[in-house]
Amino acid sequence: MPSPIRVTVWHEHRHEKKNPEVAKVYPKGMHEAIASHLRTCSDLAVSTATLDEPEHGLTEKKLAETDVLTWWGHMAHGEVKDEIVARVHQRVLAGMGIIILHSGHFSKIFQKLMGTTCNLKWREEKNEREILWVTRPGHAIVKDIDDHFIIDREEMYGEYFDIPEPMETVLISSFGGGEVFRSGVTFTRGNGKIFYFRPGHETFPTYHNKNVLKVIENAARWAAPSAGPVAKFGHYPLNWMDKK
Amino acid sequence: MPSPIRVTVWHEHRHEKKNPEVAKVYPKGMHEAIASHLRTCSDLAVSTATLDEPEHGLTEKKLAETDVLTWWGHMAHGEVKDEIVARVHQRVLAGMGIIILHSGHFSKIFQKLMGTTCNLKWREEKNEREILWVTRPGHAIVKDIDDHFIIDREEMYGEYFDIPEPMETVLISSFGGGEVFRSGVTFTRGNGKIFYFRPGHETFPTYHNKNVLKVIENAARWAAPSAGPVAKFGHYPLNWMDKK
Amino acid sequence: MPSPIRVTVWHEHRHEKKNPEVAKVYPKGMHEAIASHLRTCSDLAVSTATLDEPEHGLTEKKLAETDVLTWWGHMAHGEVKDEIVARVHQRVLAGMGIIILHSGHFSKIFQKLMGTTCNLKWREEKNEREILWVTRPGHAIVKDIDDHFIIDREEMYGEYFDIPEPMETVLISSFGGGEVFRSGVTFTRGNGKIFYFRPGHETFPTYHNKNVLKVIENAARWAAPSAGPVAKFGHYPLNWMDKK
Amino acid sequence: MPSPIRVTVWHEHRHEKKNPEVAKVYPKGMHEAIASHLRTCSDLAVSTATLDEPEHGLTEKKLAETDVLTWWGHMAHGEVKDEIVARVHQRVLAGMGIIILHSGHFSKIFQKLMGTTCNLKWREEKNEREILWVTRPGHAIVKDIDDHFIIDREEMYGEYFDIPEPMETVLISSFGGGEVFRSGVTFTRGNGKIFYFRPGHETFPTYHNKNVLKVIENAARWAAPSAGPVAKFGHYPLNWMDKK
Repeated sequence: MPSPIRVTVWHEHRHEKKNPEVAKVYPKGMHEAIASHLRTCSDLAVSTATLDEPEHGLTEKKLAETDVLTWWGHMAHGEVKDEIVARVHQRVLAGMGIIILHSGHFSKIFQKLMGTTCNLKWREEKNEREILWVTRPGHAIVKDIDDHFIIDREEMYGEYFDIPEPMETVLISSFGGGEVFRSGVTFTRGNGKIFYFRPGHETFPTYHNKNVLKVIENAARWAAPSAGPVAKFGHYPLNWMDKK
Repeated sequence: MPSPIRVTVWHEHRHEKKNPEVAKVYPKGMHEAIASHLRTCSDLAVSTATLDEPEHGLTEKKLAETDVLTWWGHMAHGEVKDEIVARVHQRVLAGMGIIILHSGHFSKIFQKLMGTTCNLKWREEKNEREILWVTRPGHAIVKDIDDHFIIDREEMYGEYFDIPEPMETVLISSFGGGEVFRSGVTFTRGNGKIFYFRPGHETFPTYHNKNVLKVIENAARWAAPSAGPVAKFGHYPLNWMDKK
Repeated sequence: MPSPIRVTVWHEHRHEKKNPEVAKVYPKGMHEAIASHLRTCSDLAVSTATLDEPEHGLTEKKLAETDVLTWWGHMAHGEVKDEIVARVHQRVLAGMGIIILHSGHFSKIFQKLMGTTCNLKWREEKNEREILWVTRPGHAIVKDIDDHFIIDREEMYGEYFDIPEPMETVLISSFGGGEVFRSGVTFTRGNGKIFYFRPGHETFPTYHNKNVLKVIENAARWAAPSAGPVAKFGHYPLNWMDKK
Repeated sequence: MPSPIRVTVWHEHRHEKKNPEVAKVYPKGMHEAIASHLRTCSDLAVSTATLDEPEHGLTEKKLAETDVLTWWGHMAHGEVKDEIVARVHQRVLAGMGIIILHSGHFSKIFQKLMGTTCNLKWREEKNEREILWVTRPGHAIVKDIDDHFIIDREEMYGEYFDIPEPMETVLISSFGGGEVFRSGVTFTRGNGKIFYFRPGHETFPTYHNKNVLKVIENAARWAAPSAGPVAKFGHYPLNWMDKK
């Protein structure tokens, strides 16, 4: 039996402390809503880490023991230390998967991986509907998902979403107001796999939605490292290959 | 001054003859609506060809003199001879650009180039709005286009659109009913460039819409062949490169 | 424990019967060399099928029970019936993975999936070396492979290889004569995953090479279908999503 | 007649000052070798800028008047000010094309655009041959280039090259020692087009090679901005599209 995939659910965990509306939807924090679902999967070994822990909970040791990291941040992107961002970046290049959630689009780590601003249009309405359409039906990330699913109330994100051309566009959303958004997109950087997944505004119960949780669960499996080669760099003399 | 780009606007030209509603919108045929716009561009040399001409108007000579072919078909896909499809296919691989319009998604040539069914969801309402969003803003195909444009009434096409992952997704549509569609997508096959562009239902005045015409004009320039190498295939002995 | 992945190793199986040199290298056929390795993997359920069986061994029932098909053909591409090719094509679009091996580049099924000629340069020397370099180190297909591996004697395939731009280029080869080739490339069509893998000339013991066998084994796992949505196509009235 | 494309050839310009061997090959600097070729093209308006000029020659004004920037650097990557890197980055996202040459793979600007280390293997021999093979023959960047070309003596760069999966792989090299390298690759970031082009070691007369110069000339045209939409970001209320 293979070792479980070690998933670390990273969360900013500030909105819940400042906004009673958010605390009501996520009494234990958004990370616990995600983690408690992932814990139901016997092939995943789940832990959490948050901004206000020492080193944001992302010590060298912790990252070395993480196969897939999920990332939700919003109001405190600027407080994430550059040193920790560099550490996470290095781990992604070495093979750790990363799943960027919702407002994490503006996180330092996502911008660093993408090389773009990751900017977009947005709007928060009490009652705007998001429909997510599957545009790569054979993808592991949409296992056991129908050809679309609906979130009754969500924040709108609209194109142009300033990201590089994705490797695969797995989900595209429409919103009540007529905007569209590439809501599920994959990339690779170095040995690491990256999935950006749009839904997850803090005032809505999005991380209690079973389709949303299923996509995150699927993505954790998809983003897990394979034991591919460690890249070799630097000076190599003529015929080094024959001298092994 | 460079030679003009030779654009051949190919059209099935059947709906106009059978349906007075279509004839009213396009009295000279949909191809003439497109061609008459392209003729206003001094760098384009425009001609037309239709299904009911001998060899569908696509003789060896005509194709040899075509840099970019646009393709609209719908009710008579099955009448296009396999021999002509093979001829067009070969020309695309040799560098001719091709722009597939709207219901041309089900044409033999597009299916042959894609390797998939090119199937989709659809719906025709009297009054359903399409909004096209630019998702690759630096692309030559959206030159002088705003970050979105609206077509007040169009047929709905919805995902999943059964095409390979595009090289670039340039435009994504939303529809009044909430569906989305990758409406402007690029591919290459051999030396040839391919652009699929969604709008163009025959009962609506879509090919009188200035944004739609501008996209087709831009795409004609983008899809024009570059004088890249003629691919060499077959048996090559050791050190052939040194014997030239 | 998950069900095993059902792999069908399809083989033309003609060279072995006509050429004693090939029969000597592969006394039970090339397919048995591949299959016997895959049978050592407890998560794979392996069978074989060959050209000269009824329906080429690829009945509707057999294909329905195949998760991943590997394909080696060369001298008899033209004998593969179009009807069977269409059947395999449909199964790929429905999610079956396919691994095209070596001279299978010219098979009808690969050409149909690619939409191109899949042509290339080639040369057979007694003693030309191929070095395969990993260019996507985190990919599941190169699990447990070093950053390169060497095949002492192989047929040369050289660029330009007339395929669409791959989704991922996982391996690139160099040859003794200085040619290069994209030797491991991935694509998707519909729900199906496609991997083309270059090595495998019939007069060399390539399918006894442990790195080559490991790549095929890895690719079988990578290409296995995920239980993604069955695509829905056709007419959908307004608000069909709300009526479920 | 269209306005000329304004190309700025940026150069570190240090090796020539310190190493007589380099000064002998490029008496006026490598930038002048490139620029003097580009000046022969009537559709290009060419200027140069170097590291030791104020603001590295890349003032706001200069960048605003640059359509395409070429970048060669090596020994002094660390001296390029982060502020200038950020400025160039912003201009690329706004549509300026950028062509990264040879050892520029390790420049801050390329790493920032790619989100990876851009590391590789290397070796400098007196007499190692590079053969560059065209792998996207219809591409504008290989206009008037044969299906391969040879540089008699060059530094070796070998895979794995730590870049994201390219949009298009246009050229792949082999080297005398058997290594391969993706030598011509394209990307987009924001509105900007990016081309990385491998050859150009300072001790060899690479920028006097007509094929190399032709590729740079072609790439300058390909990377020129199109007048695509300026992306709109931020808050957009419901129905903003109807209120224009």
